[in-house]
Amino acid sequence: MTYCVAMRLNRGLVFAADTRTNAGVDNVARYRKIHFWCVPGDRAIILLAAGNLSLTQSVISLLNEQSIDADPDATTMLTVPSMYRAARFVGDAVREVRSLDGPAVEAAKTNFAGSFILGGQIKSEPPRLFQIYAEGNFIEVTDDTPYFQIGEHKYGKPILARVAQPTMRLGEAVRLILLSFDSTLRSNLSVGLPIDVLIYERDSLDLRREARIEQDDEYFKNLSASWSEALREAFAKIEEFDV
Amino acid sequence: MTYCVAMRLNRGLVFAADTRTNAGVDNVARYRKIHFWCVPGDRAIILLAAGNLSLTQSVISLLNEQSIDADPDATTMLTVPSMYRAARFVGDAVREVRSLDGPAVEAAKTNFAGSFILGGQIKSEPPRLFQIYAEGNFIEVTDDTPYFQIGEHKYGKPILARVAQPTMRLGEAVRLILLSFDSTLRSNLSVGLPIDVLIYERDSLDLRREARIEQDDEYFKNLSASWSEALREAFAKIEEFDV
Repeated sequence: MTYCVAMRLNRGLVFAADTRTNAGVDNVARYRKIHFWCVPGDRAIILLAAGNLSLTQSVISLLNEQSIDADPDATTMLTVPSMYRAARFVGDAVREVRSLDGPAVEAAKTNFAGSFILGGQIKSEPPRLFQIYAEGNFIEVTDDTPYFQIGEHKYGKPILARVAQPTMRLGEAVRLILLSFDSTLRSNLSVGLPIDVLIYERDSLDLRREARIEQDDEYFKNLSASWSEALREAFAKIEEFDV
Repeated sequence: MTYCVAMRLNRGLVFAADTRTNAGVDNVARYRKIHFWCVPGDRAIILLAAGNLSLTQSVISLLNEQSIDADPDATTMLTVPSMYRAARFVGDAVREVRSLDGPAVEAAKTNFAGSFILGGQIKSEPPRLFQIYAEGNFIEVTDDTPYFQIGEHKYGKPILARVAQPTMRLGEAVRLILLSFDSTLRSNLSVGLPIDVLIYERDSLDLRREARIEQDDEYFKNLSASWSEALREAFAKIEEFDV
């Protein structure tokens, strides 16, 4: 399993992904699930991936290969003219990998699905955020629900659903996303630290900050402890049910 | 889908279940999922059911039929000598129904699974709580994790995991369970109000209180609003991530 979240705010975009991959509970490894293509001053495109690792890695490899030594007129992640086109382009790569490997993998009754969150900004277009399905089609975020989650999304949903607002500051949004991760990490062993965080500030056309939250990260430890404490205090304030 | 929770506390047992049943989003109905057998002064046995409605209803019907006009020496829910035996007895009923209807239903590729939470007290035995699987086997609650959830359990898990303690008062436990329901109701349309709540006080050998929380229930509306407010306040107190 995997857990990835991204939010679109008025001030930019924030992304986070865990790093645990497993093929059974006795085969656990660490893999990066955040990928990006950045040409400062021109574009910053970020892609989060969940699902079958051989599918998601192939998609990333394909996208990277296309942009190396490409004909300057060819469409690649470094030349695609809009985020909508970038989403189509990633969707095409997903379809290509599934058509190549899908029949053999699915014949062995192994799930060969994956899902992706794509966000970023290209030139003067506003930042945009998409969720791309295993079939290559996609949806775009709106202000009503300004976030996307892929992978193990249920445990971390209630706090996002109550608190997420497009007007949040970037640091507030990261705090919220990390609380959502904390709830997920406590309940699903297949989601694991470290967590990769990536922050994009609107119109910067460059990455603002990339951070890896490790097991011993002071901020995350404090956040987790303070949140437990705050929840218990909040709980104690609510009227008891009359038995 | 369904959501049911039960907790075993030092002071007794609390149970809650939603009442929504659906066969597709265009076929939604209301069904009671809490059932009980109570002989004041002798036993109070409560059963919560989730899963295929034809399976769970047949199990309840079978258990009820067995206890009507039964030979006084026959084992029924009204005569079974311990909660462990009651769990075995329910497990046998589940196996019987699955063996009768399972092959035909599963041949139509329809899921014929169900799960159950069984709790109560018989005579001087302490109150016990079991989760019974579709295969008829079962597990018992312990103080480390003093609750069971069946059905749509993920959205409502984080708050239970952080707050549930066997030392809670019964009214505190109901408050906690209703918060867990509130998170679930917000995220999964197949879990719906009203919620049935049943409270058993240790050594009473009778039901303490049965309540149905309807859409316009003042306590539940206040709980939901106060909790949203308390969460937002708690969130605001936590240090922002440094971007």
